[in-house]
Amino acid sequence: LRRCLATAKAPSTLFESLDTFTDRHVGPDDSEATFMLSKLGYDSMESFLAATVPPNIRIADDTISDASIPALSESELHARAKALGRKNLQFKSYIGMGYHNAVVPPVILRNVMENPAWYTPYTPYQPEIAQGRLESLVNYQTMIMSLTAMDIANASLLDEATAAAEGMVMAYVHSGHKKKTFFADKAVLPQTIAVLRTRAKGFGIRLVVGDASTALRDDGLRADLSGVLLQYPDVNGQITDYKDLAKEVHGSGALVVCATDLLALTLLTPPGEWGADIVLGNSARFGVPTGYGGPHAAFFAVTDSLKRKMPGRLIGRSKDTMGNPAYRLALQTREQHIRREKATSNICTSQALLANMAAMYAIYHGPVGLTRIAKKVHFFTQLLRASVERLGFKVANDAYFDTLTIDVTPVCKNAEVVHAAAALQFVNLKKIDSTRVGVALDESVSQEDLKVLVELFATAASGPKGILDEIAQPAGTAIPSSLTRTSKFLSHSVFNTYHSETEMLRYIFHLASKDLSLVHAMIPLGSCTMKLNSTSSMIPLTWPEFGGVHPFAPAEQVEGYRQIIKELEADLCKITGFHSCSVQPNSGAAGEYAGLTVIRAYQESRGEGHRDVCLIPLSAHGTNPASAVMAGLKVVAVKTHADGNLDLADLKVKAEKHKDNLAAFMITYPSTFGVFEDGVTDACKIIHEYGGQVYLDGANLNAQVGLTNPAVCGGDVCHLNLHKTFAIPHGGGGPGVGPICVAEHLAPFLPSHPLLKTGGNKAIDAISAGPFGSASVLLISWAYIKMLGGNGLSQSTNTALLNANYMAQRLAGHYTLRFKNANGCVAHELLIDLAEFDKVAGLKVTDFAKRLQDYGFHPPTCSWPISTCMLIEPTESETLEEIDRFCDAMIQIRKEVDDIVSGKQPRDNNLLKNAPHPLSAMILPDKEWNRPYSRQEAAYPMPWLRERKFWPTVSRIDDAYGDLNLVCDCPSVEELSSS
Amino acid sequence: LRRCLATAKAPSTLFESLDTFTDRHVGPDDSEATFMLSKLGYDSMESFLAATVPPNIRIADDTISDASIPALSESELHARAKALGRKNLQFKSYIGMGYHNAVVPPVILRNVMENPAWYTPYTPYQPEIAQGRLESLVNYQTMIMSLTAMDIANASLLDEATAAAEGMVMAYVHSGHKKKTFFADKAVLPQTIAVLRTRAKGFGIRLVVGDASTALRDDGLRADLSGVLLQYPDVNGQITDYKDLAKEVHGSGALVVCATDLLALTLLTPPGEWGADIVLGNSARFGVPTGYGGPHAAFFAVTDSLKRKMPGRLIGRSKDTMGNPAYRLALQTREQHIRREKATSNICTSQALLANMAAMYAIYHGPVGLTRIAKKVHFFTQLLRASVERLGFKVANDAYFDTLTIDVTPVCKNAEVVHAAAALQFVNLKKIDSTRVGVALDESVSQEDLKVLVELFATAASGPKGILDEIAQPAGTAIPSSLTRTSKFLSHSVFNTYHSETEMLRYIFHLASKDLSLVHAMIPLGSCTMKLNSTSSMIPLTWPEFGGVHPFAPAEQVEGYRQIIKELEADLCKITGFHSCSVQPNSGAAGEYAGLTVIRAYQESRGEGHRDVCLIPLSAHGTNPASAVMAGLKVVAVKTHADGNLDLADLKVKAEKHKDNLAAFMITYPSTFGVFEDGVTDACKIIHEYGGQVYLDGANLNAQVGLTNPAVCGGDVCHLNLHKTFAIPHGGGGPGVGPICVAEHLAPFLPSHPLLKTGGNKAIDAISAGPFGSASVLLISWAYIKMLGGNGLSQSTNTALLNANYMAQRLAGHYTLRFKNANGCVAHELLIDLAEFDKVAGLKVTDFAKRLQDYGFHPPTCSWPISTCMLIEPTESETLEEIDRFCDAMIQIRKEVDDIVSGKQPRDNNLLKNAPHPLSAMILPDKEWNRPYSRQEAAYPMPWLRERKFWPTVSRIDDAYGDLNLVCDCPSVEELSSS
Ligand SMILES: Cc1ncc(COP(=O)(O)O)c(C=O)c1O
Ligand SMILES: Cc1ncc(COP(=O)(O)O)c(C=O)c1O
Ligand SMILES: O=C([O-])O
Repeated sequence: LRRCLATAKAPSTLFESLDTFTDRHVGPDDSEATFMLSKLGYDSMESFLAATVPPNIRIADDTISDASIPALSESELHARAKALGRKNLQFKSYIGMGYHNAVVPPVILRNVMENPAWYTPYTPYQPEIAQGRLESLVNYQTMIMSLTAMDIANASLLDEATAAAEGMVMAYVHSGHKKKTFFADKAVLPQTIAVLRTRAKGFGIRLVVGDASTALRDDGLRADLSGVLLQYPDVNGQITDYKDLAKEVHGSGALVVCATDLLALTLLTPPGEWGADIVLGNSARFGVPTGYGGPHAAFFAVTDSLKRKMPGRLIGRSKDTMGNPAYRLALQTREQHIRREKATSNICTSQALLANMAAMYAIYHGPVGLTRIAKKVHFFTQLLRASVERLGFKVANDAYFDTLTIDVTPVCKNAEVVHAAAALQFVNLKKIDSTRVGVALDESVSQEDLKVLVELFATAASGPKGILDEIAQPAGTAIPSSLTRTSKFLSHSVFNTYHSETEMLRYIFHLASKDLSLVHAMIPLGSCTMKLNSTSSMIPLTWPEFGGVHPFAPAEQVEGYRQIIKELEADLCKITGFHSCSVQPNSGAAGEYAGLTVIRAYQESRGEGHRDVCLIPLSAHGTNPASAVMAGLKVVAVKTHADGNLDLADLKVKAEKHKDNLAAFMITYPSTFGVFEDGVTDACKIIHEYGGQVYLDGANLNAQVGLTNPAVCGGDVCHLNLHKTFAIPHGGGGPGVGPICVAEHLAPFLPSHPLLKTGGNKAIDAISAGPFGSASVLLISWAYIKMLGGNGLSQSTNTALLNANYMAQRLAGHYTLRFKNANGCVAHELLIDLAEFDKVAGLKVTDFAKRLQDYGFHPPTCSWPISTCMLIEPTESETLEEIDRFCDAMIQIRKEVDDIVSGKQPRDNNLLKNAPHPLSAMILPDKEWNRPYSRQEAAYPMPWLRERKFWPTVSRIDDAYGDLNLVCDCPSVEELSSS
Repeated sequence: LRRCLATAKAPSTLFESLDTFTDRHVGPDDSEATFMLSKLGYDSMESFLAATVPPNIRIADDTISDASIPALSESELHARAKALGRKNLQFKSYIGMGYHNAVVPPVILRNVMENPAWYTPYTPYQPEIAQGRLESLVNYQTMIMSLTAMDIANASLLDEATAAAEGMVMAYVHSGHKKKTFFADKAVLPQTIAVLRTRAKGFGIRLVVGDASTALRDDGLRADLSGVLLQYPDVNGQITDYKDLAKEVHGSGALVVCATDLLALTLLTPPGEWGADIVLGNSARFGVPTGYGGPHAAFFAVTDSLKRKMPGRLIGRSKDTMGNPAYRLALQTREQHIRREKATSNICTSQALLANMAAMYAIYHGPVGLTRIAKKVHFFTQLLRASVERLGFKVANDAYFDTLTIDVTPVCKNAEVVHAAAALQFVNLKKIDSTRVGVALDESVSQEDLKVLVELFATAASGPKGILDEIAQPAGTAIPSSLTRTSKFLSHSVFNTYHSETEMLRYIFHLASKDLSLVHAMIPLGSCTMKLNSTSSMIPLTWPEFGGVHPFAPAEQVEGYRQIIKELEADLCKITGFHSCSVQPNSGAAGEYAGLTVIRAYQESRGEGHRDVCLIPLSAHGTNPASAVMAGLKVVAVKTHADGNLDLADLKVKAEKHKDNLAAFMITYPSTFGVFEDGVTDACKIIHEYGGQVYLDGANLNAQVGLTNPAVCGGDVCHLNLHKTFAIPHGGGGPGVGPICVAEHLAPFLPSHPLLKTGGNKAIDAISAGPFGSASVLLISWAYIKMLGGNGLSQSTNTALLNANYMAQRLAGHYTLRFKNANGCVAHELLIDLAEFDKVAGLKVTDFAKRLQDYGFHPPTCSWPISTCMLIEPTESETLEEIDRFCDAMIQIRKEVDDIVSGKQPRDNNLLKNAPHPLSAMILPDKEWNRPYSRQEAAYPMPWLRERKFWPTVSRIDDAYGDLNLVCDCPSVEELSSS
């Protein structure tokens, strides 16, 4: 087969744009598609689709077509993005409130953020081919531990507000679910308090917001108190010494939760040194653009005694079978897909890429550089304070790092006068109330900027110009001496080595060289939809027009963003068949939680707030039950038949049984078993009959677009993983976006935000810190949809189905395909069962997975949703050649298995059990090699590997050892020098 | 030693910018510098410099300081570049004349052009660690051969005009230097004719420009004719059938040289099929931005019989010692550093990166996609023709591809009316004369653009709007049927495979994975100055403000570019101490040729045109004598002493001997032996006394900046390699820029350009096709200078000297340092002599070089300027740690040598002779391994290699085999399927 552009057809008119995206996005060209169809016994795509998708849920062909969503070529998309970008006005924002202008070191911008080797990998579930980003995430954890002075830190959470919510829930769990009160200081960021409010409700926590300095005098509160949240420095910029308060909190048996700022901690006593139990915040000011609110990596650190209850992913150091040190996801048993309804957090996708950027930033600057930056920011803030005071303004906070709250009334009529003067200089200050304005400085502020700031205050005060030049260099600092940091930080070698650009560049490339990503081969992770993350969709992301925007910038300055979000929401509604959309949730799991919370608010509004049962099939993703629990629901499991289909009879029984309290039913469609079930509409009818709402988990939406949709299937709400179906790169474990789309009756309840209007008129509280969640990466999905257009979107789904079915057919006869529909078709992924090989050859799923690494492939999803299975999803972006290569590898492995079954190879020392085979094993001399097969068979089982081979950098990693000996930071200088 | 930011010092005031570039560019920090100085026995940098650089040529410390060149921080530089970029107005240009708007596929833009793994490597002199870009350059050669239907093509030349000049000289050489007349058709591009004129003069060729259709009637011309240059399609857009003319030319024993257009050749009968002997042109419209004139890769293809005389680099297929196919630079004996004064071309640096981009473009589109693009461009041109004719304009050319010459007089007063209408639409048309305008269409033209074009003609003609909608789709084509391409092209597998973005991305990364670049390790190539190519300096390069500008755009549209060029020229003058600068030459060698030509023009202007002797030391780079020959000079060699210094007595003798005809003396300073010679000013005095001019080869300028300069040394003119001292990345063999700086008396002679004013008032003809040469990459050097500022520039040079001297000291005792000055100091590089090891162990320079590959290093420059030596240049960007790593490797190799000397290891089967050791060797079973050392010793001789190791992908390559069996294209489908 000779390959051509994907569509291969001559353009329909000579006028047509030639850089059409569908041609590049979809792997197989027309002749390959025809070939695959014929292998499957179909004479047309339409007949194949008819056999695959139940007719009762098919939508009209023109629902999603170029008529409903016109396609832009790649260059047209860029022209449009430029034009919209120009509508984001380039004001300089000093709004602060958790979001600071970042200076992204160019070497990190280009070689991490803009490098597909960094942005396309998946979560490092396969550590042998992910040592690079695992090391980087350990650097991140180390940085957090060191700056906060805490014992352990995780590898990021979604944002500061949800991290605070996780902290609140941890405190609650820590109290044995006994103490229902959680206290938040009123000077905590307002968006954090809004998210706490949402989360508190689901868990039945009583959230009290007040003045922390006096609140604990209330005995009633103390008695029921699980924890106290403090902001350090607080929303007004004030730095408070919480040492005594922390003792009091501990005295009442509660936990101290502290939200803080990494840059400030280079100068301030870290919370770990004054008694905090949980420390969290946003790491974005370490070199991650504000991006109109995200994505950013939140951090989360705890004391040693809390470590095994910490939410989120944690990377640990362990060793491989050859005794070499190796990194891996630690304590994986905590991951929600295991804990299910016992979970108290649903974190899955988090913010790996952004955490890596922040870690690289700290590595590039080192402790000396970071301190220099912090000192300059603080010095400028002192100068600003002195200047505005000289002008007659009154600064409300005396102890501060970078943020001032300024009372304008001594010299101005009201705050509006100052804001007006600011606007003339293209400056945004923080709007507090009619008498006060806020100013937060950051690394990006130049001497020139500072001058502009002072002059605008002078203008507002009708005061003299040139004050700044008269101000003497302040003597001391405005940080209380009791809170001045004395402890060293970031003394590890990695933070003290890569300070020249050349060294940094080499470190970045060296780590990347250890990681398998989409730049190498297919990543057929079922349920993850690892399709092309196109360059065209990634390019506008790092334009300053989109990167530099503050999330709380006035609406008239962000018309470009707003338009893009509006169009994206509209397109997602078209695609799902729903009425309204919210892009606020920062991951699929966050979307689940948001959707269920919306359902509950709706039911409450109808006087049905007591409904609290959620039916969930046993085959569901672990985030589903976890999210249900977080929304205050009780999970009741629904069975599936042996053929993989939902047991409708069981569903009916359970629905009937719980009819008085039935809140919702959560279902994934096509099912997590990889099949379009016939009964989906029936199932939804049953639920509706019993007064429940249907939540559709949209992780598998890639199988639906243009063919069916969640609304037609009978759902009321669904989330979409934009980082799956809509091509946001996974970033090695995040960012993600999990917008929810809802039917009209649910639209009024979509989430609000305390700082600007989002959601419906009966909106639930905020789900994320940012009004539009991880706003900047929405650009990627917007571009994806606009470039494919309706026809391309449909063609993508059709091809995803075709690729999966072709693969199923090629593997049949070699492996047991677990489920298919009555016509023998799978959906966009397939589940093969490897249980039989355990019996006959002692082989587990992991052995197959590790052996696939030797073939240069990322293994499919393992042991989920069935422990003995692999879930394989090729997506539409892979070509026939790549799919055949993968099938050839699987078939060859099957032959290797035969040799074990037949006794040719021993059960305990064979190609699969010893897999993967890193280079370090290859170069052993024969006597140490000591295996009943050759190096060639180990490393080059297929001829194409001689030309292209991705090498695992370690051998199989010992998980148990790592969990027993939990080490989550990078080696100290002492450790390094002793080894 | 704990590393810190390079300067480590606290900023002098807290106001200082923190993202200062010097900290990132210079590898060693202050404590490392102090450590190195102390190891060398100096207590200060100043005392070290005093020992290194002769006092008589030192300049004042403040000559190059922040006072003379202020430093901008990285973010300040970007702000400035943005502001200047905005002064390049975004007109849409239809000027053509060899420059077309390109659509760069985003996947190539980001992953080749913006990827340091592609842009930082050097020319692939070490093929075992360069198979990726060698394969890519073979793809380029294959693409050129296939599209032109020629037997062989090289791996790029500097630009179309110089390629034509190379063609002219080849024709002359082919005539046995007998036929002195070369004919160029008058419809050849004017900039090509200008460059031919310059070049003809040096060789004493008589260039005749006229009408090719009638010229051969002149018997006199025919008798002396070496070749005829034709443009196909020509400057007016006309396509002429040259079949009969070609026969006539051949009949008179001359060669047919054809300048052509790659996109047109997808539809036109290729020149190889109608008799062309040499075919050349610009490949830029295959996805390389216009960039105000360059850099672009020119192509050059010839018939089989001419192949061994072809200028430029040629990549061939050979095999390695294990019998595996492997690519390499073929026929290296043709390289100018060997041919010296026997050369007829001085090409060294060429345009590898741009050639790779063009090849990737063809791979991404494939023959079907390219044809689609060509057909659309042609179709739009037909529509434009029909539209303007309907409006009453007269189109002068009937057979055309994409370019029309339009007589406006039937409907407009003059051409200015049309240009004025165009300007209102932000459109540039080609200015021809008062009655005619030209329009050249390209891939970027959308239907909307076409409409704007037609409407502006309508406005000019006061004709009706909307004509375009009325024009019927043209029936046939405007390409004569006799010239319609019938032969297939690009049928090789590589052009028919990577059409999805995913596949393309993987191919790009796969090739890059085979190449050692600055992202991996030091590349200590002496005389090449492989310093950091900073991200900050690379980022503006791909902004559309700079990428999309046509070189012949009106001056008022390009103020941003003009300002940058002006500032760069001014800074280069400050640095060299000279009066004026021309940035036109596209490489160091082109600079040499330009400088010598300027000298000759100056002498001619004084009635000394007969001066034609050029003195050149034997140690000079091969381009020096080659350039001298090209400038019409006779080369006379000057000796050097055993201590490496120039033999002043011999110089005096030769100068005296040739005093009547002495034109110039060329000298490299510090010398190519890596030493600051004391006698440089004396040497220059001698030359001046005898009426000669001094040409200073600035390849080693990195040793001079801020300490001395070519003017103080006594030179009259110098070239600079901006791709060395001034940080333009080498791109794997180009782009380069070789500006010349000259003393005041030479300024009037700086090169001109036929299309806009450059150079002095007695300017020589053009040296390059573009008025400012490779204008876009000038941004990189401009940014480099502005970000370092004077202090940073000086610190860079000081550190480069220190690094080299420290390295010399560490290697002393292990290796023989060939030359140093009286104080025991080298300059910025060092020459070690390996001759002794040949005698005692049968080891050649190559054996050491290949063994260094096993250690993960790029070998230094080998066998130049002395065949038994290695020339090592660490540059200022490498840290102490990296330098120590390199020295450790060299010292370890020395121990390996001892084992051979002592007989422990055999002479013919040892670690050096068998190096490099690729992976494929590692996995051989013991019985095939068959070497008296272990795999571990072969692959991991140093402990740090276990963590970071770059693997050669093939074993040592057989050069002789490749030269004997010259194969320069990629395998055909047949070959592939048979293997
Ligand atoms: C079926 C299903 N639901 C939910 C999720 C959770 O999505 P996220 O990782 O974006 O939180 C996943 C993630 O893979 C999934 O596969
Ligand atoms: C001393 C010297 N002169 C001239 C040149 C030629 O420069 P270019 O490669 O830019 O043509 C070189 C290139 O390495 C050189 O080292
Ligand atoms: O990321 C998943 O848990 O699938």
